[in-house]
Amino acid sequence: MSSNSPVAVLGLGAMGTALATAFLTGGHPTTVWNRTPGKAVPLVALGATRADDVAAAVTAGELVVVCLLDHASVHATLAPVAAELAGRTLVNLTNGTPAQARETAAWAAAHGIAYVDGGIMAVPPGIGTDQAFVLYSGAEEAFAAHRPTLERLGAAHFVGADAGLAALHDIALLSGMYGMFAGVFHALALVGTEKVPATEFAPMLTSWIGAMAAGIPHMAAQVASGDYTDGVVSNAAMQAAAFGNLLRTADDQGISGELIAPLRPLLDRLVAEGGGAGDVTGIVELLKKPA
Amino acid sequence: MSSNSPVAVLGLGAMGTALATAFLTGGHPTTVWNRTPGKAVPLVALGATRADDVAAAVTAGELVVVCLLDHASVHATLAPVAAELAGRTLVNLTNGTPAQARETAAWAAAHGIAYVDGGIMAVPPGIGTDQAFVLYSGAEEAFAAHRPTLERLGAAHFVGADAGLAALHDIALLSGMYGMFAGVFHALALVGTEKVPATEFAPMLTSWIGAMAAGIPHMAAQVASGDYTDGVVSNAAMQAAAFGNLLRTADDQGISGELIAPLRPLLDRLVAEGGGAGDVTGIVELLKKPA
Ligand SMILES: NC(=O)c1ccc[n+]([C@@H]2O[C@H](COP(=O)([O-])OP(=O)(O)OC[C@H]3O[C@@H](n4cnc5c(N)ncnc54)[C@H](OP(=O)(O)O)[C@@H]3O)[C@@H](O)[C@H]2O)c1
Ligand SMILES: NC(=O)c1ccc[n+]([C@@H]2O[C@H](COP(=O)([O-])OP(=O)(O)OC[C@H]3O[C@@H](n4cnc5c(N)ncnc54)[C@H](OP(=O)(O)O)[C@@H]3O)[C@@H](O)[C@H]2O)c1
Repeated sequence: MSSNSPVAVLGLGAMGTALATAFLTGGHPTTVWNRTPGKAVPLVALGATRADDVAAAVTAGELVVVCLLDHASVHATLAPVAAELAGRTLVNLTNGTPAQARETAAWAAAHGIAYVDGGIMAVPPGIGTDQAFVLYSGAEEAFAAHRPTLERLGAAHFVGADAGLAALHDIALLSGMYGMFAGVFHALALVGTEKVPATEFAPMLTSWIGAMAAGIPHMAAQVASGDYTDGVVSNAAMQAAAFGNLLRTADDQGISGELIAPLRPLLDRLVAEGGGAGDVTGIVELLKKPA
Repeated sequence: MSSNSPVAVLGLGAMGTALATAFLTGGHPTTVWNRTPGKAVPLVALGATRADDVAAAVTAGELVVVCLLDHASVHATLAPVAAELAGRTLVNLTNGTPAQARETAAWAAAHGIAYVDGGIMAVPPGIGTDQAFVLYSGAEEAFAAHRPTLERLGAAHFVGADAGLAALHDIALLSGMYGMFAGVFHALALVGTEKVPATEFAPMLTSWIGAMAAGIPHMAAQVASGDYTDGVVSNAAMQAAAFGNLLRTADDQGISGELIAPLRPLLDRLVAEGGGAGDVTGIVELLKKPA
């Protein structure tokens, strides 16, 4: 592909607008479509072509990038233009599950569409900066052909020919993030009960979370080996004892402990099943075998 | 205090042993006691003096550091030696709640003991390195007098004269950490369902969590202002839609979603109460007013 090959973007929400802006900034002729047409106006001012309907958008070039709210909106939008998409490359950056990605891949294969599923690991202002990375999986040749265009969005990580793998990685990373956010919401609510200014507490929390995140590769090595007992410095029994203090403090301070509560039964199960002297990472095994 | 003033350490679990080791390494005459006396042996080899009973330990110097399993074990251990502690400084580094810290402070005050409560933000191998920091609150003069000795353990942060404040900060930081761990456990269980090696996935997760943690100060500013609508790039309605994919994926892949599930009702409540166009940080308000 030439460095300025054309691209169509379907969906001009916060993310679709950022994607189209990055393509335009990179010099790609960019055709845009959105259900509510007014959202195209700022992009047209940047040089985009507004398509009047989905069919006109998808036939504007070889590469069609879609970023809508969810799987249902993607299917509602694309099903009527399957014939027009045939022979082109469809890159779906809408958040979805591995199963949804595989379903769309099967639909695309049945219509002769090269399908690449993707997961955007960035917020819209990060798109086009070195803060962004995007996971891709599915049709590898089509991905490779359009890689220079897609790299306008951020670093591109191809994680496998199985279309579901980008979503698997994406959902796993988002799960990690939402767990962290849940802890942060709880922490901010808690310090607020005693008028500790959130903005004074925040830098301490940021550096603490960063320091603790440095232990993730060690946790992963434990999961890979299945051995949770090597070099333990914070045994699960001690942590189970200290964890009660987290729930008690939430109660004492009058905030809801609902975001941190679900670790309680898992810590207890881990200790009850003989993991008390090991690391809490053993909880990964319990999640794989729901009680 | 001279730079080698004596110190007593009660409790020689993983953490107490690390504390005593840091004092010894710093040149402080260190007297140690543990319920199970055998745990003192390696410290005696490093130059520690083993006390035969708690009373002998607490009378060895001006500064008594206690690090036991929990509040109950601290009280069981110290109640019989209140008279011996009178006039000395007691620094309690056992994990506890703000209410427990205030209770111990009241007990100490009644017995003429200067009381400093603390929260250790490190794992035992971090003690004595620049990775460690310890939160302190309570008797400020006593803290200041022993600060050089306490800094052997790691950076010392005094967060207020109210003895409960170190625990409040400690529990809030630990809540953030356990939220993050919960997300990491879920993520590692999830990628394991498709034989994505945990060790290949881990570096991506570590850097993603680090990048997302950089947003914590912005979240704190929103909490401080009470305005969750300024400069929104990932609106709560979109996130609520995408969040369903996390739970669906856990189900599809056969792992338990119990660690991430509690965000679901809070996202729904946030949207239902009119916060859909704002940031998800609005959940902090919901935690403060349990449903
Ligand atoms: N924002 C982020 O931080 C972020 C990060 C990573 C991934 N993502 C993913 O990117 C995707 C878009 O997110 P966003 O932030 O751009 O969301 P958004 O600002 O809420 O935009 C939603 C888009 O979907 C369209 N849409 C909704 N229902 C539709 C339907 N039935 N038919 C056709 N179009 C429909 C909307 O069109 P109208 O304008 O007509 O309503 C709009 O273009 C989501 O899957 C999200 O999970 C977002
Ligand atoms: N390890 C960490 O990563 C870490 C980090 C920050 C804070 N902390 C906190 O530090 C404290 C100690 O943790 P740790 O890792 O050292 O735990 P640990 O290795 O399990 O040691 C527990 C200690 O408590 C003593 N103990 C338990 N019950 C007792 C009782 N009824 N009477 C007297 N002594 C009793 C034990 O004595 P025996 O040897 O006789 O059993 C042992 O010395 C906890 O509050 C923990 O939350 C730990």
